[in-house]
Amino acid sequence: MLHKDKIKLIALLTDFGLRDGYVGIMKGAIATITGSVNCLDLTHDIPPQDLWAGRFCLLNAAPYLPTGTILLGVVDPGVGSKRRGIAIAFKEGFFVGPDNGLVSGVLEVWEPITAVELNNPQYWRSPSQQNLSQTFHGRDIFAPVAAHLSLGLPMHELGNTVAIADLVTMQLTPHQVEASQLTGTIQHIDHFGNLITNIPNNCACHILQGKVWWGDRQIPFVKTYSDVSPGALCILQGSHGWLEISANQASAQNQLQLKVGAAIALQTSAQT
Amino acid sequence: MLHKDKIKLIALLTDFGLRDGYVGIMKGAIATITGSVNCLDLTHDIPPQDLWAGRFCLLNAAPYLPTGTILLGVVDPGVGSKRRGIAIAFKEGFFVGPDNGLVSGVLEVWEPITAVELNNPQYWRSPSQQNLSQTFHGRDIFAPVAAHLSLGLPMHELGNTVAIADLVTMQLTPHQVEASQLTGTIQHIDHFGNLITNIPNNCACHILQGKVWWGDRQIPFVKTYSDVSPGALCILQGSHGWLEISANQASAQNQLQLKVGAAIALQTSAQT
Amino acid sequence: MLHKDKIKLIALLTDFGLRDGYVGIMKGAIATITGSVNCLDLTHDIPPQDLWAGRFCLLNAAPYLPTGTILLGVVDPGVGSKRRGIAIAFKEGFFVGPDNGLVSGVLEVWEPITAVELNNPQYWRSPSQQNLSQTFHGRDIFAPVAAHLSLGLPMHELGNTVAIADLVTMQLTPHQVEASQLTGTIQHIDHFGNLITNIPNNCACHILQGKVWWGDRQIPFVKTYSDVSPGALCILQGSHGWLEISANQASAQNQLQLKVGAAIALQTSAQT
Repeated sequence: MLHKDKIKLIALLTDFGLRDGYVGIMKGAIATITGSVNCLDLTHDIPPQDLWAGRFCLLNAAPYLPTGTILLGVVDPGVGSKRRGIAIAFKEGFFVGPDNGLVSGVLEVWEPITAVELNNPQYWRSPSQQNLSQTFHGRDIFAPVAAHLSLGLPMHELGNTVAIADLVTMQLTPHQVEASQLTGTIQHIDHFGNLITNIPNNCACHILQGKVWWGDRQIPFVKTYSDVSPGALCILQGSHGWLEISANQASAQNQLQLKVGAAIALQTSAQT
Repeated sequence: MLHKDKIKLIALLTDFGLRDGYVGIMKGAIATITGSVNCLDLTHDIPPQDLWAGRFCLLNAAPYLPTGTILLGVVDPGVGSKRRGIAIAFKEGFFVGPDNGLVSGVLEVWEPITAVELNNPQYWRSPSQQNLSQTFHGRDIFAPVAAHLSLGLPMHELGNTVAIADLVTMQLTPHQVEASQLTGTIQHIDHFGNLITNIPNNCACHILQGKVWWGDRQIPFVKTYSDVSPGALCILQGSHGWLEISANQASAQNQLQLKVGAAIALQTSAQT
Repeated sequence: MLHKDKIKLIALLTDFGLRDGYVGIMKGAIATITGSVNCLDLTHDIPPQDLWAGRFCLLNAAPYLPTGTILLGVVDPGVGSKRRGIAIAFKEGFFVGPDNGLVSGVLEVWEPITAVELNNPQYWRSPSQQNLSQTFHGRDIFAPVAAHLSLGLPMHELGNTVAIADLVTMQLTPHQVEASQLTGTIQHIDHFGNLITNIPNNCACHILQGKVWWGDRQIPFVKTYSDVSPGALCILQGSHGWLEISANQASAQNQLQLKVGAAIALQTSAQT
């Protein structure tokens, strides 16, 4: 085993919830290999099988993790089917999980170097196919593979090379900047009820000022929540890096009842 | 203090939830003794006082933890009454917690060596009975005892020996294998709504094939969730090691509304 | 970097929930600086913007944490406004977070030595104000500052000194002890539905015995939950250190429907 300070961090994201102990079991599988709990939890409360929510959370967390971190992402509606398991090495870190689009947000912000299909059972929990679960690859394949990567195992040991261009991706309708209008999509609704668009913060400066028209609503474009009175809606440059529709000390989602994927058009003057 | 690499891992399971900080306080009590957070969370969302759920989760996690791990389990409806606190040394690891049946699943899969009643207050948070809480032995007794065990304290220091046969146990109605029928019990319903029986996977191969009759329902026996269409029920060999009734990308429990303890009878042909 | 054993523990408390990955991002910001996840979670399920709940949980956990622990508390309705960010050095540990009263319970039980306003951007995530989020100081200011403190950075590096007396505090109506009556306030309602008052346990012994009158209810004053039958209300000396109104294996709150801040008067005989 390497000296503990050399073990890479493993950042976990799943839709397993925390109730059933599945996450603890994955960490047990990791600790059995690495001798420590070299883990950081991103979230385990991705709504079951919601690849879009998982994609957003990985994308959002990636820039704030130490260099070399291994993203271990398991939102896996196709577990046991023919979908591939993959590992990707980026300039900034690694991803281990199913090849189903979950990592496609990270592919936009990290620089991929190489990818492999996880088809070498030597680094799985049990090399015997006999004992391999058809429904819990998180425990039996992805956690052990992430553990071995955290100890420095070279990528090519894990399986055959896959072209980066062949990885499954999921794309949002891109944002658009027009003379007096920004259009985009709600890409996430967070715990506070903030609606996060896919319109980058830096698009806003030239277009938005004062009150912004969104359909027939007028909403102030502000610096921070407390610039409006409690309960009032506002638009601001969100901490994620995208424009965000929020309510001061309240849930914007409770007022607006939107869904991820909803189209957004923001204008500097009322549409005629 | 031992070198950090020698400190055993402590795997926590409670019904404390994560809202109130009780779990963090237990970890603080551990770190005060060991100098590190040598902890792994199994779950803290066991339904309040639900010993059956706690029993299942410990049983299910035990095989995947590093050798020597200390299971610290606190689901403790009898705290402050005369129920004993115990520590058990197994060939594979340790248990610390109340003697109320919580560990009885682990007793079926790990090999017990010795057990003690926790009646030596020297290794509690405060040796003075004065300061001992009547309602939070997790913090005041079990966490400190687990911390001392993780540093290598011999079992006999903790209190008087208890015969393994005298430990409180909880038993499910055992499964039965007949010519064309498997009977058993729902022993757990997980976060995804999967119904986990107590019929071991390896009983299934000889009995079940194609569609299985369960009362007047016919349900396909498959390899993985995606072998049936989204929303459809299926029976499969679950990752826990027991037969499981599931629905592809959906909750079987939402459709079936069963309770833990419900009897299950699966047949290869319709009952006449 | 210091030897890992010398890195102080950081105990996190937020209202971020665990769904969105915000907590994982804060830990990523810490690990980027310290090279390890030297973190312990108190809770992240403080109700959004509920400073009273955050105040109670910090107060309650502080006595059980290792000496030198850094409390990193982020319940921050005023983020981005003129409220100050602060660090406080206590004899027992540290606090880093907003100056909004969140730490005011800890100020009653730990001994403050010095406090600073966090106005030196050198120890923030990015020294450039340009990249500073107006809405996520947890990630951009408080987590990095806590990480630097955990490595031993002297307090005065972080910003200008603030007088302890000038810190924002939040106070409950104090408890009162009279000849045959104890008055106080519900200061917390926990996960089990226990109602925790602000009347210290040691006030009870001289006043309460047998059945206690609370308005027109008579409730037994007992040692532990199981001294009353399942579902029945009781009053006991709680593990937090304050008198607690509970129900055996049930939720007192479900029966009583009180709110934090509710006044409580307990008497040894019926009021006439």
